[in-house]
Amino acid sequence: MLTPWNDLSMAELTVLETAFWSSRTSRHALAGLLDYSKSKANATVAALIERGLLQEAGLQSSSGGRRPEGLRLSERLGVVAGVDLGATSVDVALMAPDLSIRAHHAEAIDVRAGPGVVLPRVRAVLRELLARLGLEARDVMGIGMGVPGPVAFDQGMLVAPPLMPLWDGFSIREDLRQDYTAPVFIDNDVNLMALAEQWRLRRQLPDFLVLKVGTGIGCGIICHGQVHRGATGSAGDVGHICVDQQGPMCHCGNRGCVEAMAAGPAIARLAEEAARQGDSALLAEWFERDGQLLPEQVAQASRAGDATASGIVQRAGGLIGQMLASLVNFFNPSHVFIGGGVTNVGPLFLAAVRQSVYQRSLALSTRHLEIQFSPLGGHTGVTGAGVLAMQETLRTRGVAP
Amino acid sequence: MLTPWNDLSMAELTVLETAFWSSRTSRHALAGLLDYSKSKANATVAALIERGLLQEAGLQSSSGGRRPEGLRLSERLGVVAGVDLGATSVDVALMAPDLSIRAHHAEAIDVRAGPGVVLPRVRAVLRELLARLGLEARDVMGIGMGVPGPVAFDQGMLVAPPLMPLWDGFSIREDLRQDYTAPVFIDNDVNLMALAEQWRLRRQLPDFLVLKVGTGIGCGIICHGQVHRGATGSAGDVGHICVDQQGPMCHCGNRGCVEAMAAGPAIARLAEEAARQGDSALLAEWFERDGQLLPEQVAQASRAGDATASGIVQRAGGLIGQMLASLVNFFNPSHVFIGGGVTNVGPLFLAAVRQSVYQRSLALSTRHLEIQFSPLGGHTGVTGAGVLAMQETLRTRGVAP
Repeated sequence: MLTPWNDLSMAELTVLETAFWSSRTSRHALAGLLDYSKSKANATVAALIERGLLQEAGLQSSSGGRRPEGLRLSERLGVVAGVDLGATSVDVALMAPDLSIRAHHAEAIDVRAGPGVVLPRVRAVLRELLARLGLEARDVMGIGMGVPGPVAFDQGMLVAPPLMPLWDGFSIREDLRQDYTAPVFIDNDVNLMALAEQWRLRRQLPDFLVLKVGTGIGCGIICHGQVHRGATGSAGDVGHICVDQQGPMCHCGNRGCVEAMAAGPAIARLAEEAARQGDSALLAEWFERDGQLLPEQVAQASRAGDATASGIVQRAGGLIGQMLASLVNFFNPSHVFIGGGVTNVGPLFLAAVRQSVYQRSLALSTRHLEIQFSPLGGHTGVTGAGVLAMQETLRTRGVAP
Repeated sequence: MLTPWNDLSMAELTVLETAFWSSRTSRHALAGLLDYSKSKANATVAALIERGLLQEAGLQSSSGGRRPEGLRLSERLGVVAGVDLGATSVDVALMAPDLSIRAHHAEAIDVRAGPGVVLPRVRAVLRELLARLGLEARDVMGIGMGVPGPVAFDQGMLVAPPLMPLWDGFSIREDLRQDYTAPVFIDNDVNLMALAEQWRLRRQLPDFLVLKVGTGIGCGIICHGQVHRGATGSAGDVGHICVDQQGPMCHCGNRGCVEAMAAGPAIARLAEEAARQGDSALLAEWFERDGQLLPEQVAQASRAGDATASGIVQRAGGLIGQMLASLVNFFNPSHVFIGGGVTNVGPLFLAAVRQSVYQRSLALSTRHLEIQFSPLGGHTGVTGAGVLAMQETLRTRGVAP
C-alpha cells in the first residue's frame, strides 16, 4: 500500500479530511461544508474515487425525500494502528479508516520496565493483529500512540516523565520505524481523550476541556477546534495548580497542589486517616480487613450513605472545582468533560465540582457552561490514537516530522 | 469606494491577508508562504493589482543581491477606522491599510455617561478626521473598536459591563451603521492589546498571553495564532481567580480574588494603610499632603528605595505571579507580555512575578518561557482596533455578522 499523498491537491486532502470527520457525507454536503462549487466538489470526489481513496457507501439512510449517495474513506487506504499505553496496561487496535475496530488486544504491562521491554511487546502485538486480518506492515497507513506522561509532540518522545524515567527522550517513533514506513504520532493520554471526545462529537464544539482525574490530574484542551499542546507540549498539566497556600507539601516542592489534595491517592489517604480516627465504622472495617483503602472503596462507602466518605468526596470535588473555576474564567469553554477513575465516585463528586465552579467563576463564563462526566466508553484510548493517526497522516501527507 | 469582496476567490483573499500581515512582501515570498506554485502566485497577484487592491511598493530595501519587488495593500482599499474607548478617554484614528496612522485625535470622556453621549461624540470625531483627509464615509473600509468590558463579539455589543451599565446590550454596531456601510467589529481592550502584539510580532508567535494589570486585571489569549475569545466571549477574565482562600472580600462576593489583592487600587490601599501606621515616612508625607495615594506614587517610592513601598510592589507581583503560574501550567504559552498601568512600577514588580511563576510552574512549561513588559507604545489601542478591522473585514468579505 503506497498512498501517493504527495500527488494530492489541497482540495483533495481537504475532502478526505472532511469525509473522515463527517463519515458517509454526500457530494452536496461536502460542497456546502467546504464552500466549494458543485462542479469543484464533484470533480474532486471523482478524482479521489478514481485513485481508490474515497468510495461510494451505497445510498445514505434518509428520512426525507433526499437520497444522496454516501461517501466514505476507502478501505484501500489501509488500516490505522492505535496504541494506548497506560501505567499498567496496553491496549492495541487496528481500525478501518472510519475508526471501526477490526482487531483488538489488551494486556497487562509495567510501563516502568522501559521502552526496551514494552515496545518489542507492542510491536509483537501489532504483528499478531495484522496477521489475524491477513495484512502486512505496509497496509498500515498511520500509527497513533498515547502515553501517560508529557510528550514533545514533534519529536514523538516523552520528556522527563515522572512515573517512567526510562522513557525520557527515547524515540518511540524511531523504534516503530523498524517495522513500519507509516508515520508515527505520539501524544499524551489526556490529549487522546480530548481527540476521542472530538470524534464522538464530530468536531461540533470548538472550545472545550477534558479533565482526567485518577492517580494524577490532567486536562486536554480543544481550542479553535484543535488540540492545544502549548509552546513546549505541556499544556493541560494542571495537577500542580495551587488550591491552598497552607495545604500539604506536594512531591513537586510546593504546597497545596490540587493533585496532592484531591486526586485518587489523596482521597484514599484521607479515608485511611478517617478510618484510623474512628470517624467511619464502614471505612474502619475495610481498612482493618485490607490494610489499605482504595478510592473506589471511598466511592462505594459514599454511595452506601457513609457521611465521612461523602465528606471526603465532596471536599475533593470542591477543590477540583476551585481549580477548574480558574480555568473556566481564563478559557471560557462551552463544555468540561470529566473522565478518569474518579468518574466512578458518582454524582456527589460531580455536584461538588459544579457548585465550586459556579460559585467561583464569572456569571458570563458559566451562563451556558456544561460540566459532565465524559460518556466515552472502553475504547477511548485507541479511538483517540486512531483520530490522531488519521488526522496527522492527512495533515503531514503521510510523513511524520 | 465599493470593494467587491464577494467577487474575490479564496486565493485572492488569502493573498490580501498575507500581504496585510507581512507588508511589502514579494511574489516569491508569497508563493513560499502560501505553498502556491509560482504561476498561481503571479496570476493571483496580477488579478489583484488589476482590481486595484494590491500595488507595487517599488523595489524592496534589500541587504543582499536580491531585489524583489515589494507588494502591499493598495491605498485605494480606503482607510481603516480604529477607536479605543477607555474608562476616561477615547482615542480615534484613521489608518492606511498598512495601519500607518493618517489622522488621529484623543480626548477625555466619561464612558459611564453611556452610549447616547459617547457614541455621537465618537462619530463626530470620525467625521472631523475624514474631513481633514478630504475623505468621505464611503472611503472607510472597516471599523474596529475596543471597549473596557466584556463583549459579545458576534453581536458587537457589551454584555453586563460592571463599570458602564448603560452600555449593557447596546448595539454599537447598529449605532455606527447610521454613518457607515463598512463593517464594524467590537472587542474588549485586552484582546486588542493581544492583536497589537501580534501585529508587532508579525504573527510569528502562535501561543502567547498578554496580561493587563491596571485598575482591573485581564488577559488576552493568542492560541493557534488567533485571538481566543471563548464560548461566550469572556475568555481571559482572570481578575477573579482566587489566590488566597482567606483573602479579603471582593465585590464579586468571593474571597481573595487576585484583582482585589494585587491590582492598582489594592496597591494604593495597602500603601495608605502603611502610611497611616507610620511604616513609611515618604508614603505618610505624600498621604498627608494629598489625602490619598496613587499606585504611581507607590512605584515612585519603591524606586526611591522605600522598603515598605517595595514590599507592597513585591507582594502584588508575587500574587499576580501565583495566578499566572496556574495559567502557564494550563496553557503553556511561549511568552507572557505584561501591560497596563502597572508597567510603570518597574523591574521589582516584574522580578516578583517571574519568581512566583518559576517557583510554582512546571519545569517543562517554563523552560523557554519569556515574561516581559509589553514594549507596545502609545497607539496600542487604535493599532489593535485597526488589526481587528482589517482582519475581520477580509475574513467576512466586508460584511459584519
